[in-house]
Amino acid sequence: MKNRQGILIVVSGFSGAGKGTLMKRLVEEYDGYALSISATTRTPRAGETDGREYFFMSREQFEKRIAEHALIEHAEYCGNYYGTPRDYVEQKLAEGRDVILEIEIQGALKIKAQYPDALLVFVSTPDAAELRRRLSGRGTETEDVIQKRLCRAAKEAEGIEKYDYIVINDDLETCVKELHGIIAAAHHAPARNEEFIEKMRGELEGKQIEN
Amino acid sequence: MKNRQGILIVVSGFSGAGKGTLMKRLVEEYDGYALSISATTRTPRAGETDGREYFFMSREQFEKRIAEHALIEHAEYCGNYYGTPRDYVEQKLAEGRDVILEIEIQGALKIKAQYPDALLVFVSTPDAAELRRRLSGRGTETEDVIQKRLCRAAKEAEGIEKYDYIVINDDLETCVKELHGIIAAAHHAPARNEEFIEKMRGELEGKQIEN
Repeated sequence: MKNRQGILIVVSGFSGAGKGTLMKRLVEEYDGYALSISATTRTPRAGETDGREYFFMSREQFEKRIAEHALIEHAEYCGNYYGTPRDYVEQKLAEGRDVILEIEIQGALKIKAQYPDALLVFVSTPDAAELRRRLSGRGTETEDVIQKRLCRAAKEAEGIEKYDYIVINDDLETCVKELHGIIAAAHHAPARNEEFIEKMRGELEGKQIEN
Repeated sequence: MKNRQGILIVVSGFSGAGKGTLMKRLVEEYDGYALSISATTRTPRAGETDGREYFFMSREQFEKRIAEHALIEHAEYCGNYYGTPRDYVEQKLAEGRDVILEIEIQGALKIKAQYPDALLVFVSTPDAAELRRRLSGRGTETEDVIQKRLCRAAKEAEGIEKYDYIVINDDLETCVKELHGIIAAAHHAPARNEEFIEKMRGELEGKQIEN
């Protein structure tokens, strides 16, 4: 099981489900992970560093990347581009790292189309009441914004069956363990152990002669 | 994630890979599992109890079970029948237990055809040399028998890609943890959480109105 191939993990889920914290804890607690860093044309916020939270770039630079197919996927929100740089992801996968990224369902499906072995994981709260509490709890959102997010959550919930796995973020530490367990299990698929299987087959052929 | 549905787990692998010990440890260390008990027409060995190691029965009784489709699969080895009683497996699954059984590849594929959600797990030694050591190590086998088993192992290795997962039984405790992790991960498939997903969808529809 050495020289393992990295797995691309795509995390989606309701706004307020705690995806960001979950991924941050996963990468902190376990070795072998790399967080994908998105490219964006939006202005850096206070405390954000280029190459840490995002790769910040101009619209011209971003559009050049699109034209070069240097982004696995991209989308425009509120007048800004967001996208996933291909070279960073592929470099980490080649190093054997499991690369994790957060994206909404349309982007997730675009990634699955290009990387069929990618694992799609949907993160949910235990129920809708808890989702509403978390959205309200931030205290920074108006009732109108909360309603819009719940409406969007209802739409997102329609696509859950497109995902390979669903995790319920009730207790954060439990959820981090479950997410890691799901990824660890995926490493045991025969398609991810072809090298070992071929080696074993070759040895067994040899062993029948050997005495 | 309550009221979970039981998963049927089919374990195959090389003779000498330690499947029996692995399954025994899994059931001892974790809750929620049930070992399937096979039916057989072979004579009980010293220390074997009916309904514990096997359900012992006559050929007439066994053939009646075959005719009644009361066995998920069956096969004949060395003049004796072996089979998997359907009622025992289905009762445990209905109780929400994960039912685990050991069988060779032909039986595993027959089970997958009837239970498409069954998890097929292949158990291997780390290499062929270790397999030979374990086969010889028992001390009860002649070189001829060892050769036959290695030859059979080579044949079995051809079917590994039919399995959902492969585990390497190098260190037993690690392998037990890996096997449990694979099964725990499978419980997170959306198809195994339809009740939760429907509940969440219903609530989200409601929440958009609620203020």
